[in-house]
Amino acid sequence: MNEKTKCAESSALRIRIDYNNMLSTVVGEHGISPAELEAMHERLASARDAVDAKRDSMRWRDLYITERANLSAILEMAEFVRYRAENFVVLGIGGSALGPIAVQQAIAHLHHNDLGKAVTGCPRIFVEDNIDPERMAALLDVIDLDKTVFNVITKSGSTSETMAQLLIATKLLLDRFGEKDLREHLIVTTDKEKGNLVGIAKKYDLHTFVVPDGVGGRFSELCPVGLLPAAVAGIDISAMLDGAELMDCICTNAEVEKNPALMLAGLEVLAMEKHGANIGVLMPYADSLKYIADWYAQLWAESLGKKKLEGGRMLRFGQTPVKSLGVTDQHSQVQLYTDGPFDKTITFIGVERFRRTVEIPHVFDDIPAVSFLSGHTLNELINAERIATEHAVTASGHMNKTILLPEVNEFTLGQLLMLFELQTAYAGELLGIDAFDQPGVEEGKNATYALLGKPGYEDKLKELQGRSAKNDKYVI
Amino acid sequence: MNEKTKCAESSALRIRIDYNNMLSTVVGEHGISPAELEAMHERLASARDAVDAKRDSMRWRDLYITERANLSAILEMAEFVRYRAENFVVLGIGGSALGPIAVQQAIAHLHHNDLGKAVTGCPRIFVEDNIDPERMAALLDVIDLDKTVFNVITKSGSTSETMAQLLIATKLLLDRFGEKDLREHLIVTTDKEKGNLVGIAKKYDLHTFVVPDGVGGRFSELCPVGLLPAAVAGIDISAMLDGAELMDCICTNAEVEKNPALMLAGLEVLAMEKHGANIGVLMPYADSLKYIADWYAQLWAESLGKKKLEGGRMLRFGQTPVKSLGVTDQHSQVQLYTDGPFDKTITFIGVERFRRTVEIPHVFDDIPAVSFLSGHTLNELINAERIATEHAVTASGHMNKTILLPEVNEFTLGQLLMLFELQTAYAGELLGIDAFDQPGVEEGKNATYALLGKPGYEDKLKELQGRSAKNDKYVI
Repeated sequence: MNEKTKCAESSALRIRIDYNNMLSTVVGEHGISPAELEAMHERLASARDAVDAKRDSMRWRDLYITERANLSAILEMAEFVRYRAENFVVLGIGGSALGPIAVQQAIAHLHHNDLGKAVTGCPRIFVEDNIDPERMAALLDVIDLDKTVFNVITKSGSTSETMAQLLIATKLLLDRFGEKDLREHLIVTTDKEKGNLVGIAKKYDLHTFVVPDGVGGRFSELCPVGLLPAAVAGIDISAMLDGAELMDCICTNAEVEKNPALMLAGLEVLAMEKHGANIGVLMPYADSLKYIADWYAQLWAESLGKKKLEGGRMLRFGQTPVKSLGVTDQHSQVQLYTDGPFDKTITFIGVERFRRTVEIPHVFDDIPAVSFLSGHTLNELINAERIATEHAVTASGHMNKTILLPEVNEFTLGQLLMLFELQTAYAGELLGIDAFDQPGVEEGKNATYALLGKPGYEDKLKELQGRSAKNDKYVI
Repeated sequence: MNEKTKCAESSALRIRIDYNNMLSTVVGEHGISPAELEAMHERLASARDAVDAKRDSMRWRDLYITERANLSAILEMAEFVRYRAENFVVLGIGGSALGPIAVQQAIAHLHHNDLGKAVTGCPRIFVEDNIDPERMAALLDVIDLDKTVFNVITKSGSTSETMAQLLIATKLLLDRFGEKDLREHLIVTTDKEKGNLVGIAKKYDLHTFVVPDGVGGRFSELCPVGLLPAAVAGIDISAMLDGAELMDCICTNAEVEKNPALMLAGLEVLAMEKHGANIGVLMPYADSLKYIADWYAQLWAESLGKKKLEGGRMLRFGQTPVKSLGVTDQHSQVQLYTDGPFDKTITFIGVERFRRTVEIPHVFDDIPAVSFLSGHTLNELINAERIATEHAVTASGHMNKTILLPEVNEFTLGQLLMLFELQTAYAGELLGIDAFDQPGVEEGKNATYALLGKPGYEDKLKELQGRSAKNDKYVI
């Protein structure tokens, strides 16, 4: 097999990673030594083989294949929404929201909602991923229900936050339009046959899209969860799948040291295990990629934040992801990154070519401290600052690496999503934990059920009430 | 002196803090023991006294007094802008942006810009704290310069990002309106007499507001940096100062154990020094307080992220702040917070009464898994989830505490800002570091200057070019 041909690896639009600055040969004693890296070769190969062997249970990895069949239905529905609606409201939380937000921010105009449908050809898009009453009321202040389509997204159909939002929206829609026309205003994305939304969708004959089996929330962006909202915003979802395909192909076929997701996973695991990096900063230098950091933060935290009983000891895993934005956070966090402890890795995301060019004009040429900027572009300035910050962080001895996108478009974004998903799967395997469950959220869910009086949670309520009262000494 | 009278400590709108769950008696072995806390008493008292003794050099602490004199000028300008403009654009970064963003989000309508001037009586507000060319171009796509007022904010007048934005905006304004009318569209907030903006303001006779001496960027929200944008958004800035005054009064007069800012500082320092908490999560349960976490992240990171040579060893300080949002991030980060390592503290911010009430109606009463929500309000749901998450995190043995606001308004917000500023000042004193400088950002600034060819940085450019080339082996 000729990999290079098969994977279009040499594509000019391929994402690159540069991890020179993770190494002790560059950053000094707090970096990973080349010997440590070499010693990890077998472990990396095993992790890759294990992940490949489980491919059948990792259906998220095949979405770029399986979802091709659904593209025309998704595009048709998106066309209907674009024709019908001035507002498209996603009701979802966690994986049902972070992907749609990240993709819209990356590809759509950065003031999409302000620009107006006459210019964009698309409705305004709102992703409602909280249950703050002020936020829900504020949304209802600015949308006209006549011209609004909701897309409720929850695989289980039992996510309390999303179902509460659905109750509110459905009541408003039924009161206004009646049962027959509900389907004009409410689209369902849920499990194929299980859960509460299936029956509701049937009852009102709602348009329904399916979250496939074996695709957990945080790995669901490339199924209708993410594809429908993206298509509504006019985003080329087919090109996103192409990008994911390229990255998966590269990671499936490349040797260990040439597999970008595997190396990223290995570097973070080494940094965690041997160099005290319990913090992982992700710092894109582009407003368009700001919410990729939020999407990644769920993927990484919820997948790797685990405990495991081993030899009578409870082991704790998980690197805390930190979202940062270049250059903005240079004026907030870089002081800490340079002079602070050696407890973190920093992953920059750079963009070689931006989609717009803005020149910095000559105005105050008599002020040298300002005029040196004139004649350059913001494009040059933001990338100079990224390189300068990389230099400063490296010079201070802190591990860092860079993911470089030739440009931000659907194809590179698809690569980036798959890169991080595979990195996460590999890291779970390297750490010997299950990266695909989230048992730690049950206690909080159950306590919420108890506090709201859900039948069957009476014992949990007693347990909560039985907890010792607060000591007033520690309340100020 | 009768403190309680003087400070109105018993105000029904006073913020409370509850740190029961920081203690080992509640969370177990990974908590702070009551003995550790008691043993810290003298150290806390000394830190408080030291901060009080330096009050003259901490002019940010007196802004609620000194800025009273400027209120009428600020309000008058805000009135002019509200009359004149449909868009108000802040050009600033770091402390010149994070405060304005946080305060607007907290107090103004959550869809302020979508609601329209006819409803709000205020212009749309944009705070531009990045130099991404796509973002600048996108902004210019949606604002009409005729109806736009810019407020450029930089104390030094030499912040590259802000000055680049200023060059772009000024050129557009001069081309459109000429020199004479520039003052109708550009307001300056800067140092009283130093820096490049002073001369520019004089040349064009621009309205100018002053960042007082001794007020660093991250401590500047309660001077014109924050007060003017807030007033333009229709926010009661006098009540914000009142809130700051109350909190300062409490912290000045209270005994150590009743001083909320001092105890918060002490708890974080103990958690860092003795319990490995190099991460501090701030998790407001209210969309309105989302960007308080961003503002706090700069305050805490840039103030405490320091290094110090002591006895021939370089000591490194700094807890990494993590921004989290309840309930949203329950579906992203709480798995890590409960099952992950004992390397963090979690500070919840709760709101007792929200400004809007949204009922969850009865719609699907035949589905028990959903219908238990009906009859409750979103207000109840969000607070039940906050308490449930507090319970889950506590049950898993992780240190946490809660800051409770009776409601979100200008008065409680002013308290919260001062609470965090004092906490930061006390923490700096406890750690024995200078919380008010930021030497670690110079290297990156200088490297940027060099890369852009600023005169005087030729040697730095040579140094950058002289760094060893990237090893292709580590580029994939």
